[in-house]
Amino acid sequence: MAQITDEIGFIGLGNMGVPMAHALIDAGFKLVVYNRTSSKAQPHVEKGARLASTVADAVPRGGIVITMVSDDAALEAVVGGEDGVAARLGSGGVHVSMSTVSPITSRAVAKLVEDRGGYHISAPVFGRPERAAARQLWIIMSGAMKPRDRVKPLFAAMGQKTYEFGEDPGAANIVKLINNFMITSAIEVISEGLALAEKNNIDPKQVASVLGEAMFNCPLYKSYFDIITNRRFTPPGFRMELGLKDIDLVISTATDSRVPMPMATVIHNRVLQNLAKGRGDLDWAAVALGAFEDAGLKV
Amino acid sequence: MAQITDEIGFIGLGNMGVPMAHALIDAGFKLVVYNRTSSKAQPHVEKGARLASTVADAVPRGGIVITMVSDDAALEAVVGGEDGVAARLGSGGVHVSMSTVSPITSRAVAKLVEDRGGYHISAPVFGRPERAAARQLWIIMSGAMKPRDRVKPLFAAMGQKTYEFGEDPGAANIVKLINNFMITSAIEVISEGLALAEKNNIDPKQVASVLGEAMFNCPLYKSYFDIITNRRFTPPGFRMELGLKDIDLVISTATDSRVPMPMATVIHNRVLQNLAKGRGDLDWAAVALGAFEDAGLKV
Amino acid sequence: MAQITDEIGFIGLGNMGVPMAHALIDAGFKLVVYNRTSSKAQPHVEKGARLASTVADAVPRGGIVITMVSDDAALEAVVGGEDGVAARLGSGGVHVSMSTVSPITSRAVAKLVEDRGGYHISAPVFGRPERAAARQLWIIMSGAMKPRDRVKPLFAAMGQKTYEFGEDPGAANIVKLINNFMITSAIEVISEGLALAEKNNIDPKQVASVLGEAMFNCPLYKSYFDIITNRRFTPPGFRMELGLKDIDLVISTATDSRVPMPMATVIHNRVLQNLAKGRGDLDWAAVALGAFEDAGLKV
Amino acid sequence: MAQITDEIGFIGLGNMGVPMAHALIDAGFKLVVYNRTSSKAQPHVEKGARLASTVADAVPRGGIVITMVSDDAALEAVVGGEDGVAARLGSGGVHVSMSTVSPITSRAVAKLVEDRGGYHISAPVFGRPERAAARQLWIIMSGAMKPRDRVKPLFAAMGQKTYEFGEDPGAANIVKLINNFMITSAIEVISEGLALAEKNNIDPKQVASVLGEAMFNCPLYKSYFDIITNRRFTPPGFRMELGLKDIDLVISTATDSRVPMPMATVIHNRVLQNLAKGRGDLDWAAVALGAFEDAGLKV
Repeated sequence: MAQITDEIGFIGLGNMGVPMAHALIDAGFKLVVYNRTSSKAQPHVEKGARLASTVADAVPRGGIVITMVSDDAALEAVVGGEDGVAARLGSGGVHVSMSTVSPITSRAVAKLVEDRGGYHISAPVFGRPERAAARQLWIIMSGAMKPRDRVKPLFAAMGQKTYEFGEDPGAANIVKLINNFMITSAIEVISEGLALAEKNNIDPKQVASVLGEAMFNCPLYKSYFDIITNRRFTPPGFRMELGLKDIDLVISTATDSRVPMPMATVIHNRVLQNLAKGRGDLDWAAVALGAFEDAGLKV
Repeated sequence: MAQITDEIGFIGLGNMGVPMAHALIDAGFKLVVYNRTSSKAQPHVEKGARLASTVADAVPRGGIVITMVSDDAALEAVVGGEDGVAARLGSGGVHVSMSTVSPITSRAVAKLVEDRGGYHISAPVFGRPERAAARQLWIIMSGAMKPRDRVKPLFAAMGQKTYEFGEDPGAANIVKLINNFMITSAIEVISEGLALAEKNNIDPKQVASVLGEAMFNCPLYKSYFDIITNRRFTPPGFRMELGLKDIDLVISTATDSRVPMPMATVIHNRVLQNLAKGRGDLDWAAVALGAFEDAGLKV
Repeated sequence: MAQITDEIGFIGLGNMGVPMAHALIDAGFKLVVYNRTSSKAQPHVEKGARLASTVADAVPRGGIVITMVSDDAALEAVVGGEDGVAARLGSGGVHVSMSTVSPITSRAVAKLVEDRGGYHISAPVFGRPERAAARQLWIIMSGAMKPRDRVKPLFAAMGQKTYEFGEDPGAANIVKLINNFMITSAIEVISEGLALAEKNNIDPKQVASVLGEAMFNCPLYKSYFDIITNRRFTPPGFRMELGLKDIDLVISTATDSRVPMPMATVIHNRVLQNLAKGRGDLDWAAVALGAFEDAGLKV
Repeated sequence: MAQITDEIGFIGLGNMGVPMAHALIDAGFKLVVYNRTSSKAQPHVEKGARLASTVADAVPRGGIVITMVSDDAALEAVVGGEDGVAARLGSGGVHVSMSTVSPITSRAVAKLVEDRGGYHISAPVFGRPERAAARQLWIIMSGAMKPRDRVKPLFAAMGQKTYEFGEDPGAANIVKLINNFMITSAIEVISEGLALAEKNNIDPKQVASVLGEAMFNCPLYKSYFDIITNRRFTPPGFRMELGLKDIDLVISTATDSRVPMPMATVIHNRVLQNLAKGRGDLDWAAVALGAFEDAGLKV
């Protein structure tokens, strides 16, 4: 039941952007989509979206544009410059930034938009692509207060619930990073625990089954117990190379904030160990392999 | 629906032993109880249990005796010696060892019992005292195969489910230690994450609420989110001094098994930091205070 | 006995640059100096150096210019742009980059210089200001091969020995970062060891004295034993805030290289802990205070 | 120039005990030696020592007995019991305990000796076997004050210098453990640093050479730079399995003292990783192999 009849811009059709844009189209929004590799946009065009040939062309002046790009540099590239989001959006428009980026980049990008008279809302999401496809994302919102009601219908189409934080455009990103930090920690902790089991000739699958039924009876743990005990590391749900990006965003944010996070640095070292062994294209849960090798287990 | 009419010995009426013994009495078992401090046994006696004045008196020859004591040394003390469990139990009896101890101690104690012709079953539990009171424990069993059917009715009275592992008496203890390691890790990870939030002026309670509804929607996390954000560290559900014992059992087992567990050592250091500041009598979730102080937050 | 009669540019008169420039003047080189705060250059002018009012004015076309600035951003700022070192130096000139920066920045800056026909030599140094004043620095050189003989007389005037590495302009910076990593590690290790002593009522000064005479009989350890046991943290020889910069350069280089460095991340967390407590202006050896507090010692 | 004409007991002829006993004989002391494997004593007997067939026979009543055994359990075994050191030494005798053991064991053993009227001096040493052979050990003494002058001539024969600490028999052991912790830390730090060099195509031997000439110009570093860059891990100067014992003594002492030592736990994990890969019989500097493998280097 979309109440927005103007074209909505959507920039970035990666693993997450694709199902999110589909969700918007299915909910009745008129979308103009842009992606560096335009072939990714074909299914959206078939469902009625307009294909923009440039970033500028995907930004409705005074309207709403969503960005969902791969990293901080990509976000800065699409928002800045005379043909970028901030310049084109102009006064009264809303930039909805859904990428996983650092709070510093969020604040910098927000300033670019606001300097041109626009509004910036950071709205990173919790959930992998399959959850996006099911419109079950959780959306974390912070930044400008005024345009929130304008964008909520979009969020309602993409996710199951939206959580509102304050005016700091970086706040939502920090909450997202905390979430990712806690997920990676769970992966590492599961890995160490199962290594201890296996090294003692206790079936890791049985341990995983017991723990997943008792104290750790939540989808997150059950999912990673399954991935790790069955070595389902390819195709990756989330590539380990991107995992490094995320954990480094956590650590750089912690560094800027003067917050020591020893668990985060353990994971950082674990990811590097696995990347050094050529596992960057596996799912990031494959960091378990490093933990198993460290215990002298065959992997 | 107890099918055992002989007296069952129950040694050790601490925070966990008390509700577990009550559960057995309520289920119709005849109990003989022993505790170093006999006053703890009074409520059980009032409900029909017999009070033993010595360990030996609480061990039914050829029958079943449960031990639930505080640590490895206490277990070795009650099982060994001429008046201990192993000697008194004799041929055909079953020692059910429910304490959290190292697998090495479990194996040593099992040998003492088996050398006298008895059976040893290790059966540590998952759950805090309130869960024991609700007969909702999860029970992990390993050791002798033959007497398992004899003891299952007891477990059915105390817990919601029993999980069976193999013949190694140490296996169940290792599974228990993995569980405790994963719980303490969750506490530390929550602490670091919330420190990052608070240091960035984001309300930790709101972050906890969002995470607990989304990816970390399981009782364990919700419980520790609540304890930590509301500083409910006293009275302790589980004293931090005992937490040190548990994490040290994890590390010593990992050491014996040649399994590096960097997350476990982070927790070890965190617990020491907090004990050094005099927090041994608080709930072990109070290790969060050290994480907050490290971030320069007032606690 | 300088063999270079042309003017040498020297940009950056900080704690290290000041004594290094003096050493060159004293050795007979003609210097043109530049510093953002020109008052720092006064003593050099009194000794015969010419004061440049802009970076450009301090760069002898086709000659040699030394930069010794505070960080990567400052180096990029002075080398890049139409009035920067690379543009002004022109064909045949030599840029000698002595700052502690990342190998990535070194390579980028080298490219800027080489694109204009110049040569780039990275030449970071080992040693604090007092060692620079005594002309006892160790100088690590890498980058262009051809102009090495031209710059060696300068190094001979500033240091006791020059070590030559290969053509990668980043190599010398990596060696420098390894050195700094090892120094910070020594500080942390000393801190933990002395905390253990003091907590056991053993005089840390006596322990330091014994260790410094026996296995750790080298100036580095003796110096930090003295600083730490006597709490000589102010005035700082090297500010802790700069220490964070250095350890972060180590970690980012390790990250780019896919090298897990768990000791480096321990130090990273330790520095953050101390910065969070407001110790950024103390000598970086004051990270010991965090280690002592963690052990429950008064500091 | 020994001033002691009575027989001195010497128990424990391992890698260290052998050269230490030789040093005493060469200095003119009358020795009675005991070792579980008596063949080890043959060279000493040829130089004039008497071979004892039991521990008891090696303990001169009221005299001096030195113990240099492999671990805490071995020390407790030779000192306790009716035929042990404490019982046989009797009133006025001196037990000189030179093994690397925990302070707790030292205090327990001291009590056994003192309960029988004897004196206990803890006197662990710094230095490997080759240093013992050269009589260049450093000896750390704590415990009873009264008999110190009686034992100093022995120490003068074995070492280059003796350092006196207070009456706590555990103090000397703690100083020894701090020393060993610092040595293992140096090994780990060197390993991480050289991994970073090699991964960046910088010759580790050249880096080691530069660092060993500049800031890390002390025998300890030069020795480990050489061992690690040349992979001289066998025959072991100090077996990695024993290294685990030592680092675990450090950590258990830190635990008892409530002193978090994150560097020590990094090493603990590193040693386990290498032991899991079957390197227990190599020199403990071979922990470097784990660091190199983590960086994706061939070892």
